Amino acid sequence: MDRELFWKETFKVRAYEAGPDQRATIHSICNYLQESAANHAVAMKVAMDTLLKANMTWVLSRLHIRMEKFPYWNQVMTIETWPATKEAHHAVRDFRLMVGDELVGVATSSWMMFDFVKRRPVPIPDFMDRYQNREAGRTLHDPFDPLPEIPDRDGLKGLRFRVRMSDLDMNQHVNAVHYLAWALESVPADIWKSAVAHEVEINYRSECHYGDAVLSYSRVHEESADRLVILHQLIREKDGREVTRIRSTWRKK
Amino acid sequence: MDRELFWKETFKVRAYEAGPDQRATIHSICNYLQESAANHAVAMKVAMDTLLKANMTWVLSRLHIRMEKFPYWNQVMTIETWPATKEAHHAVRDFRLMVGDELVGVATSSWMMFDFVKRRPVPIPDFMDRYQNREAGRTLHDPFDPLPEIPDRDGLKGLRFRVRMSDLDMNQHVNAVHYLAWALESVPADIWKSAVAHEVEINYRSECHYGDAVLSYSRVHEESADRLVILHQLIREKDGREVTRIRSTWRKK
Repeated sequence: MDRELFWKETFKVRAYEAGPDQRATIHSICNYLQESAANHAVAMKVAMDTLLKANMTWVLSRLHIRMEKFPYWNQVMTIETWPATKEAHHAVRDFRLMVGDELVGVATSSWMMFDFVKRRPVPIPDFMDRYQNREAGRTLHDPFDPLPEIPDRDGLKGLRFRVRMSDLDMNQHVNAVHYLAWALESVPADIWKSAVAHEVEINYRSECHYGDAVLSYSRVHEESADRLVILHQLIREKDGREVTRIRSTWRKK
Repeated sequence: MDRELFWKETFKVRAYEAGPDQRATIHSICNYLQESAANHAVAMKVAMDTLLKANMTWVLSRLHIRMEKFPYWNQVMTIETWPATKEAHHAVRDFRLMVGDELVGVATSSWMMFDFVKRRPVPIPDFMDRYQNREAGRTLHDPFDPLPEIPDRDGLKGLRFRVRMSDLDMNQHVNAVHYLAWALESVPADIWKSAVAHEVEINYRSECHYGDAVLSYSRVHEESADRLVILHQLIREKDGREVTRIRSTWRKK
């Protein structure tokens, strides 16, 4: 296997990344995934330099995480990641999450190419063909079908989030992880107490900036003896534009 | 030197811990300090076990951080920390922050002992006398005098923060770092653009819980050619109780 196309990074779970159960929260896991993807992209220097010269950059469009177990405070989680496949308009990056020899989670993600001068998505350039690690395979086969909207959203009251300075990332955008936190935040406290969101499917649709406010809507979509499926939508207050759509699956405790 | 009384831990700056200047934010630095203090307290197992058996735990009362330089994304910062001195009602822990061989910051903190059955502060027990590392000295001589209140606070409009589920720490309290972020957030954007808060003095006064709302007030207290001093107060909305008082010092760019 071409070592350049495979990235391995460890994350020691910090207290401030853990929830009341002393385990890493799912949005901390999401931070680790983005961090390892960014570091791998930077490490594939030739690819990155060529893209930047052509005014292109990667934009995360879909992220699907499925956790079996969440690591505890001070446990070390290893994330392995690689570019898995490539189509005309998106590329797929997969992840394997390990604690020691135990597989604790899998994830997959879909990325678009964005021309930052033309300010629009563009096809993925042909030279990226060689930056695929087909040998490493897929960890989660998600065809990335559209996620459903919340039925009857008009009947719901959205929870309002004003974008904080401390929500911004190095590019002055809201760090994508906060959208997940805001979506889960609108889930009622009794569900938080009785269940754990162990799987999330996220579709990033538009950006927010400092000063924007976002309304977070959630509705339980399916419920059975051992699990719940919840649909989420984040809507920008000023123009009603959809920022993020999410489906979360909760395992009852 | 007694090795048990000295703790060293490394932190690789993550993208999600960095601000738009690609350097660790001061609230990320604050997270690293608390993390290393907590890990050291847990590592001093006999002390910790004895305190817990007596229904006692440490509560952070004052924290003073002075940074010379902020580490960049992916730089590794080493934090050295030790219990420096002890008085009847508080104990002092100091910190040295290094990037490679370079000292990039210093910090000191004052901790009270809290009886979690009686729900009140108690004197620090005598057996803690032996858990002091006088040999390592002090990095920042702060007598922890009271911080000033904001003059004419009634004339200010507070910025409102509702405590989010994701603001809670493992003890269901708001992670102390968020109070700093909320305080700095109420500083006008033009100051954020033209200056960097490189020194903060924090006095934690009371707790907040999920569902509480906090009003954040700031006022410029001193201004000179190269720096600004800003006073901050966080007030719990429902009862007007003061949660945190902060003084921040900003270096103009």
